[in-house]
Amino acid sequence: MTLSPTARSTLRRLPDRARTDRAELYAVLDEALICHFAVVLDGAPRVMPTGFGRDRDTLYLHGSSGATSLRAAAGAPICVTVTLLDGVVYARSVFHHSMNYRSAMVHGRARPVVEEQERLHALRVIVEHLAPGSWTHARHPTRKELAATAVLALDLAEASVKVRTGPPKDDEPDVQAGGRWAGVLPVRSGFGPAVPCPLLRSDATLPEHVAGRGAACT
Amino acid sequence: MTLSPTARSTLRRLPDRARTDRAELYAVLDEALICHFAVVLDGAPRVMPTGFGRDRDTLYLHGSSGATSLRAAAGAPICVTVTLLDGVVYARSVFHHSMNYRSAMVHGRARPVVEEQERLHALRVIVEHLAPGSWTHARHPTRKELAATAVLALDLAEASVKVRTGPPKDDEPDVQAGGRWAGVLPVRSGFGPAVPCPLLRSDATLPEHVAGRGAACT
Repeated sequence: MTLSPTARSTLRRLPDRARTDRAELYAVLDEALICHFAVVLDGAPRVMPTGFGRDRDTLYLHGSSGATSLRAAAGAPICVTVTLLDGVVYARSVFHHSMNYRSAMVHGRARPVVEEQERLHALRVIVEHLAPGSWTHARHPTRKELAATAVLALDLAEASVKVRTGPPKDDEPDVQAGGRWAGVLPVRSGFGPAVPCPLLRSDATLPEHVAGRGAACT
Repeated sequence: MTLSPTARSTLRRLPDRARTDRAELYAVLDEALICHFAVVLDGAPRVMPTGFGRDRDTLYLHGSSGATSLRAAAGAPICVTVTLLDGVVYARSVFHHSMNYRSAMVHGRARPVVEEQERLHALRVIVEHLAPGSWTHARHPTRKELAATAVLALDLAEASVKVRTGPPKDDEPDVQAGGRWAGVLPVRSGFGPAVPCPLLRSDATLPEHVAGRGAACT
């Protein structure tokens, strides 16, 4: 299944970096821990980092029900961008310096999620994205906690995926000239060893859903 | 020197996470490799990941002079957000799950940089931010390359910094109840071993400005 292009989800710059397979959109969204979410407030854009989750073709966002940006986003056009930085590209010329990355950009109107079952489902999706296993392990939200939480849904209907991989693309004369190093410095990320809460009982053991998440940089 | 708060750069949600020292703004901006930059296009926001650089209280962005978003941004209100993700916070309740992070948000009108000396200076600042040492090592831009590049400047006048650190903040009854693990899984990032361009001569040595950038995850 492919991404359905619209004017704003069709890459005009460097179209060879565009990916049109929906599976690639899912892969980028599912690997990232956070997204950057933008809304227009008083005519100016505002970008915030936030957690999110995906269920099939719906992306869920949440936050405090008192947050200005979430209130403004309800029913309004928003943009959600997810970026995975894979490397710094050193070229022979300053001009061809670049980055290797995978990014997804989603456009649409944010739908406030108000029905209780969908709200709970959305929160589960968001928590399981950030901390897989936590929905089973941790205490579920109370009515009061639910009331304090705003949930938004965004259809993954209008989206683009952009990917750059590989070595620098230098001009031929610069390659021939030699004398300048070129290549890629990969960017790696991963998890360090878990740090237990100081208020935990001293005999508390690290559960598998946290321990198994991987302690090394990948 | 402190950040000068305006209505939109004053944190209303969780104000205890706000930092008001300008040095903290610089620290967040200087550590991040990319920013997320937003502009309003046809009434809807658009967020893009991009490289950037900082010189004192000016943030520089650049891109292709043909890029729609950069053209739209010239003279228009933009927002630039930089986020460093430090950890996943596992709480005893789903509600108190969180992330440790440092983020900076800058608001303002983007000023197109047109004067040749400032354009060159801005490009040097951006390249040295992404790849320190490359401005000296790599070939400088030609007139044609400069003409193909748009440069924007954003004053760091209206900015906010938000930081979350430390363990989860669970409710006392959940702490007392015990039985559920809580703590932080730190997120680490760093550079992997450099990958030389396949077109390099086989006797090319890795220069110190790349080799010395650190190969291990931090």
